[in-house]
Amino acid sequence: MLIGVFDSGIGGLTVLRALRRAWPGHSTIYLGDTARVPYGSKSRQTVVRYARQNTHYLLSQGIELLVLACNTASAYALEELQSLPVPVLGVIEPGAQAAARATRGRHIAVIGTAATIASRAYERAIERLAPGVRISARACPLFVPLAEEGWEDTPIARLTAERYLADWLPGQPDRPDTLVLGCTHYPLLRPTLAGLLGPEMTLIDSAEATAQAAGPLLAARPAEARPTHRLIVTDGAEGFARTAARLLGEPEVHLEVVDLTPPGMMD
Amino acid sequence: MLIGVFDSGIGGLTVLRALRRAWPGHSTIYLGDTARVPYGSKSRQTVVRYARQNTHYLLSQGIELLVLACNTASAYALEELQSLPVPVLGVIEPGAQAAARATRGRHIAVIGTAATIASRAYERAIERLAPGVRISARACPLFVPLAEEGWEDTPIARLTAERYLADWLPGQPDRPDTLVLGCTHYPLLRPTLAGLLGPEMTLIDSAEATAQAAGPLLAARPAEARPTHRLIVTDGAEGFARTAARLLGEPEVHLEVVDLTPPGMMD
Repeated sequence: MLIGVFDSGIGGLTVLRALRRAWPGHSTIYLGDTARVPYGSKSRQTVVRYARQNTHYLLSQGIELLVLACNTASAYALEELQSLPVPVLGVIEPGAQAAARATRGRHIAVIGTAATIASRAYERAIERLAPGVRISARACPLFVPLAEEGWEDTPIARLTAERYLADWLPGQPDRPDTLVLGCTHYPLLRPTLAGLLGPEMTLIDSAEATAQAAGPLLAARPAEARPTHRLIVTDGAEGFARTAARLLGEPEVHLEVVDLTPPGMMD
Repeated sequence: MLIGVFDSGIGGLTVLRALRRAWPGHSTIYLGDTARVPYGSKSRQTVVRYARQNTHYLLSQGIELLVLACNTASAYALEELQSLPVPVLGVIEPGAQAAARATRGRHIAVIGTAATIASRAYERAIERLAPGVRISARACPLFVPLAEEGWEDTPIARLTAERYLADWLPGQPDRPDTLVLGCTHYPLLRPTLAGLLGPEMTLIDSAEATAQAAGPLLAARPAEARPTHRLIVTDGAEGFARTAARLLGEPEVHLEVVDLTPPGMMD
């Protein structure tokens, strides 16, 4: 089965990695919308427009399952994409399910980009799955550039996390017991966050949760003898290939570049 | 005279502020391309396409002078825009001129986004103005999100600056005597950078240098009795209005939203 995955940039590569590890017998095509990254600071209307363009491109490449490996796109565009001819999976519902299963103290924290948090998508999903659970949500905009700089394990990352999560640290009263990493970049910061928050806090990685959620859709299909993997970006700036190789554990990766914004009269 | 100013987002507001302070008798129209921010991580081809679309829009609004208040657009698109019917001013040439005048030790440092530094635009401009001057250039990608978070005066900002600028701090051998703040966001970090680098280092604010460089173009035109100021964005996400009000020292600002990307067949 050909799995199509898109994200605004490199963050969704953590989802791609989790999918490829969990389901090595299936082909993938990843679209990173690097010409328009990031989505996290943009409005619903703009994110929905971009998500539609990305989806139409991936359908034209023959995908049979679509994974929105971007929390912002999942929060804003998943409903609009439900009428597609292929099943669609976002990262929010799987993360919310894993959190609802994991919480023991019935207090779940969610961190993400400004847009994901403003959408309240995790809160709505968790409230539906575990009514009455308390939810604390917070935007952490510095985490994405820290991860992209490769600084996820530095004193700067720790100070930044301490500032964002001050009232959730060990010793604070009334802290949550489960934290949802509600942005696909955040698994890169997982060791730093786990070190700060201590072993009593369960961290939910929505990339892994999403790969698990794809299981029922993939199980019915035979594994391929020679699965193929394509990486596509909308802008060929340097950096993506290096990060993709590091994240996917390959010596180097081949990138294809496509232009998804028809220039129109003003170009 | 109606001055048109564009930037990828909020950074260029430092240039707008400097222009409005230096030339209060002229009208301005500012375009923040917030739907496609940031430009700093994108390729030349993409940045040129966006700069053309922004320029055509501002010309349709009647501007008589265009200021590219974005280092990335200045580095990549200024030459392509020289055939316009109005004069065009970038931020790089004025900053380079100010640095060439200021240096005493003939060693100039330049900091900016990854794209600005990769373009080598400041280096080429300074080499032309002051042949033989030594130039050290460095990308500082975390500075923009730190400024946008309002964290420019925190221990996190100081640690980040110490890490980026380690070999230029007081006591280091062979440090530059002049530092060009080669990104329009960076004037917000100026107090933190000045505190770290000490009084012997001259900081060049390219926003102020650009406002000064507009003088010869504006001096011939009479001041207006009631200059008007418009702020336009390509995406209406929250945050811009708040930052604009803070930067421009106004209680609140009115934003207009335009869509510059004709959706075409894939929308």
